[in-house]
Amino acid sequence: MKKIYDLIIIGAGPAGMTAAIYAARRKIKFLVIGLALGGQMSWSSDVGNYPGYTTMTGIELTKRFQESLKEYNIQIKPEEVIDIKKESKIFRVKTKENDYKTISIIIASGKKPKKLGVPGEEEFLGKGVSYCAVCDSHLFTNKEVAVIGGGNSAMDASIMLSKYAKKVYLIDINPKLGGEPHLRESVFKNKKIKIIQSAKTTKIFGDETVKGLNYIQGNKEKTLKIDGIFIEIGLVTNTDFARIVKKNKWNEIKIFRSTRTNDENLTNIPGIFAAGDVTDIPAKQIIVAAGEGAKAALACFDYLEKYKTKNEKFI
Amino acid sequence: MKKIYDLIIIGAGPAGMTAAIYAARRKIKFLVIGLALGGQMSWSSDVGNYPGYTTMTGIELTKRFQESLKEYNIQIKPEEVIDIKKESKIFRVKTKENDYKTISIIIASGKKPKKLGVPGEEEFLGKGVSYCAVCDSHLFTNKEVAVIGGGNSAMDASIMLSKYAKKVYLIDINPKLGGEPHLRESVFKNKKIKIIQSAKTTKIFGDETVKGLNYIQGNKEKTLKIDGIFIEIGLVTNTDFARIVKKNKWNEIKIFRSTRTNDENLTNIPGIFAAGDVTDIPAKQIIVAAGEGAKAALACFDYLEKYKTKNEKFI
Repeated sequence: MKKIYDLIIIGAGPAGMTAAIYAARRKIKFLVIGLALGGQMSWSSDVGNYPGYTTMTGIELTKRFQESLKEYNIQIKPEEVIDIKKESKIFRVKTKENDYKTISIIIASGKKPKKLGVPGEEEFLGKGVSYCAVCDSHLFTNKEVAVIGGGNSAMDASIMLSKYAKKVYLIDINPKLGGEPHLRESVFKNKKIKIIQSAKTTKIFGDETVKGLNYIQGNKEKTLKIDGIFIEIGLVTNTDFARIVKKNKWNEIKIFRSTRTNDENLTNIPGIFAAGDVTDIPAKQIIVAAGEGAKAALACFDYLEKYKTKNEKFI
Repeated sequence: MKKIYDLIIIGAGPAGMTAAIYAARRKIKFLVIGLALGGQMSWSSDVGNYPGYTTMTGIELTKRFQESLKEYNIQIKPEEVIDIKKESKIFRVKTKENDYKTISIIIASGKKPKKLGVPGEEEFLGKGVSYCAVCDSHLFTNKEVAVIGGGNSAMDASIMLSKYAKKVYLIDINPKLGGEPHLRESVFKNKKIKIIQSAKTTKIFGDETVKGLNYIQGNKEKTLKIDGIFIEIGLVTNTDFARIVKKNKWNEIKIFRSTRTNDENLTNIPGIFAAGDVTDIPAKQIIVAAGEGAKAALACFDYLEKYKTKNEKFI
């Protein structure tokens, strides 16, 4: 018979990694599956609110989390989960490469950047198109780039890019920038940033790498010649694979929030828990996600205890 | 007019310190009041589940948290809060030394050891009576000590003490030890630990320091000559001062758990939030308390924004 895990943790950001530490200490049979080590944490330029550390980059903090995992000899399977389903008394977790069996699941797959959905976006990904100014700004030293978006993350990206690039075009589909007033002020004052309002990007083009984009403004199609394009139009939850759990209108997984251990962080399906930014908890913060990962793990252990008492013959 | 704070944080454990970091970053007028730096975290012998760090002592982790506070120049007032009350549109926070005014409060005062309530307990505190085996075990090298209690923390303390002391008496009021099976097994196997069941401690005596205790077992009063007494009969919430907020039967502060920022971690009184082990959240863990401190802070900022819009003339 194929191995049945006690728990599969989906996601390797702060919530998933914390759940993994708790699972290792509990000495259960578990697996962590995740492609993006550190998740959103790894894209942060400065993390100054993870208590116990003074300000450091998200990449550094991700490394510290990895040290914690190493202490318990926890490996992460770098696979992409494509489906989870219930089958009799267990769950199946399907990745592109494998098909795992497990008694319980913690979904901690976080969020990912929203796509623009224009021609050229997929083709030039990593060839001038990026969703991460923190990761890729330095690649555009003395070049001209565009940031697409009009909220906090687009403004943040523009300011960061202005430290490297010669010129930054901030292309906003709305007539006015949104986000926080102090960020708008910084953008307005920054001489390297040129704001283009009411502009809908329609196409990304290039040869080996990005050479420019087209946008429509007041019924006219215009062309902008640039070397890099940063798409910063928000985040969406990583939940394509999680068809069987209930979500809210933002596609965040609904979780129970309880005063009892056993149904904390539980989804609508007994045995499937969720934690971190993929859920409907309002505070999207690294320290909160880590705490939620611990809560989900403890709730899950409670579930496993009860499950094993009930299904002694089965396991 | 006396200064009115935006926020007073009561407690300097992981929840309170995290809330303080968030408050400092938000640049509001706030104060942290707490006598026990690190709270329960500081008594832990080994913390192996604070993600981002490998295993370290609770005292070390407390120092790391202090470094985070130092980065934002956060001072902690070492005072004891004795009362909080609502007065018109603000709150008064009374300590033994001062009387502060504030718009909002985060209660993060955690838990403290339960007292035994026998003669001599207060008198010999710090003179042989201790509530913290992690802190004081080494003081009893080659001596004879008693641990009073019969649950996990009493067994933990007995095992820890057995590494220093010549003899450890575990005095349990019940006929059988409670707690986790693996701990009971370790206690049973340990030749230095002698278990005395169904024994009710009645008195602690000594001269300059502890010399022994009396207990009743089966209607007989017996005397045990020892040099140290560790009281490990559980924890109670630090909520004597928090008369105006609702609590559950364990005296834990009831908090809202919401999918909206503005009433997360809110108590029954608008403007008073709570976080960490003092609340009715089931997971009592350092990482969870820290996450809850962040959530309470974010909810509180939301409250302050709304308060200030409504009371512009007042402030």
